[in-house]
Amino acid sequence: MQTVTKEFQDHIAILRLNSGPTNPISSKLVDEISKTLVEIKGTARGMALCGGDQFFSVGFDLPEVLKFDRPEMGNFLERFNKLCLELFTAPFPTVCALSGHAVAGGNILALTCDYRYAVSEEKKIGLNELNLGLPVPYLADMMLRHTIGNRYASQMIYSGEFMSFTDAKIIGLIDVVGPPEELEDFTIERLSQIASFQSQAFSAVKANKVEEIKRRYEKNYPSKNEVFLDCWFSDPVQKNLLEASVKF
Amino acid sequence: MQTVTKEFQDHIAILRLNSGPTNPISSKLVDEISKTLVEIKGTARGMALCGGDQFFSVGFDLPEVLKFDRPEMGNFLERFNKLCLELFTAPFPTVCALSGHAVAGGNILALTCDYRYAVSEEKKIGLNELNLGLPVPYLADMMLRHTIGNRYASQMIYSGEFMSFTDAKIIGLIDVVGPPEELEDFTIERLSQIASFQSQAFSAVKANKVEEIKRRYEKNYPSKNEVFLDCWFSDPVQKNLLEASVKF
Amino acid sequence: MQTVTKEFQDHIAILRLNSGPTNPISSKLVDEISKTLVEIKGTARGMALCGGDQFFSVGFDLPEVLKFDRPEMGNFLERFNKLCLELFTAPFPTVCALSGHAVAGGNILALTCDYRYAVSEEKKIGLNELNLGLPVPYLADMMLRHTIGNRYASQMIYSGEFMSFTDAKIIGLIDVVGPPEELEDFTIERLSQIASFQSQAFSAVKANKVEEIKRRYEKNYPSKNEVFLDCWFSDPVQKNLLEASVKF
Repeated sequence: MQTVTKEFQDHIAILRLNSGPTNPISSKLVDEISKTLVEIKGTARGMALCGGDQFFSVGFDLPEVLKFDRPEMGNFLERFNKLCLELFTAPFPTVCALSGHAVAGGNILALTCDYRYAVSEEKKIGLNELNLGLPVPYLADMMLRHTIGNRYASQMIYSGEFMSFTDAKIIGLIDVVGPPEELEDFTIERLSQIASFQSQAFSAVKANKVEEIKRRYEKNYPSKNEVFLDCWFSDPVQKNLLEASVKF
Repeated sequence: MQTVTKEFQDHIAILRLNSGPTNPISSKLVDEISKTLVEIKGTARGMALCGGDQFFSVGFDLPEVLKFDRPEMGNFLERFNKLCLELFTAPFPTVCALSGHAVAGGNILALTCDYRYAVSEEKKIGLNELNLGLPVPYLADMMLRHTIGNRYASQMIYSGEFMSFTDAKIIGLIDVVGPPEELEDFTIERLSQIASFQSQAFSAVKANKVEEIKRRYEKNYPSKNEVFLDCWFSDPVQKNLLEASVKF
Repeated sequence: MQTVTKEFQDHIAILRLNSGPTNPISSKLVDEISKTLVEIKGTARGMALCGGDQFFSVGFDLPEVLKFDRPEMGNFLERFNKLCLELFTAPFPTVCALSGHAVAGGNILALTCDYRYAVSEEKKIGLNELNLGLPVPYLADMMLRHTIGNRYASQMIYSGEFMSFTDAKIIGLIDVVGPPEELEDFTIERLSQIASFQSQAFSAVKANKVEEIKRRYEKNYPSKNEVFLDCWFSDPVQKNLLEASVKF
């Protein structure tokens, strides 16, 4: 079974997470999105990132990753962050189409896209890292501040809670909220519009957009990842994560 | 004929673009604004940048610059960007008084000022670079993000379209919209207010404001300008520009 | 007499400025806040910074600091800025509880905190540095831009004026405005909430938040402080400050 499926509508690649009802971010999912991204880079002029109707993604696959020792978890974390950077710096326009909840790592994947379009339903988005005893990962922190500004970003990070898609739209975390049945068509239509521009010119403006975050990430990520691992493997956090993993 | 005129009202310099009905940015205009800026630097305590009633400026003088080969265009581009950086980092307060359309390069000139005041008329502002197959120049990208924040800036750049002055005020691209007959008096009055502060103190806060953009521009502009030239001299873009130049 | 008092409510440290009815920032106050900060760092999981009911703080203690010669003033300025950086980068959540006016240096102290909660009364906040002929100090400039964004920050700095707490809330300079009798309880309650997170995780997200400003400050402050001193010791500014000091 593939954890991510890929189709094309004209030159727009549609990637759909498919790693289970909650779309947990497993080691395999990270690998397969990364590979898919390499595959589409030559031909895609835009990318839609989709998930399931209940969950876009619930975040890290806790039952799996809780078995990792520190080197294994460090490896997973680095591959996840590298994937996020590749998505964020993709030279074509990207939209995350949110039909379901996007929490923790799921929210982070959503942040890698240029836009977030979501269904007008009672679904949640947010970063509960602090609530679990973890820092919001460095790259996610920077992407969030870039997207919604420092003030809302700090509020959101410090709250450790989820919010509705409607509230997320108010602070700019979600760009458009609309009827579920129109979400994907709207996403493809908007992507096609932007994809109609010269790709060389678009990739140049995208490079300008992401330049500073890319520079800071590449300079600082090793020490930041170590701090994350220190928190991850502390006793109270392992206890929190174990409790949370029961729900998976 | 001079392409820019200069007058003083007390210590406020009023620069008025005067290179034709649409105020195209010609090689001569870039030189003459640059020279005028040098002339006023000793005495001016503030600067108003004005254009015509129909057009503040339509952007690059396409009929002229389309004749440039790559070295010539590279030279023009570098001089234009250097001028924009000098305007942006001017040690005194600056206001762009917009009576007419400010599009593409015209919008970029407007972005170099501390404030943008505009007439309450059906005039347009915007960056259609992507629509032509060009990236928004690096410095303009950073000034725009600085002024209206990343989210609105990306939206505006990705749209490739113009907007009304009223819509531009909503996103913070324009600071004040008012009656045409009051525009210049209001501009001078506001500049005089800020100019009444100690110039040494003002230049220090202005330096803080522009510091990071100046640093990034000076570090990265050579490669960014080359990417712009690559796009500029591609066949489809030359075709677009030729079509656009017919309207001049 | 101590110029700052300290108490604990559970693990939340409450620092209260106590250097006179207007809480001027004297050399002694800077030293004592710095020392208190060192004392609480081992035990505090959050900090409330409070002032008086009339004044949170009026800013620099002009009658004292106007006696300083340039080396003395340079030393004072560096210690004040170092204190602000320590407050800003404190590894625990911080709230400034504003019962009274917070102007000039008082506003700067307020900016070092994660949040600013204020009473619903006719009190003022603002940076009148330019009005006195001084630049807003470099670190304050960056903290302000971080908190309320570049556009409002430039407007506020260029105005040189104070605003009501209500107006400050509109631009995001103040986060919550509420009844005076509830201010401190609300502050402690909110701090306790954030302090309930793992401190290692919180300090990591705080480090991400302040990283770029800390880097820039440490790189550039010597030259910035010299410019401030140049302005401070100019004749017209000394005259302004002498006039202002009469009100103390």
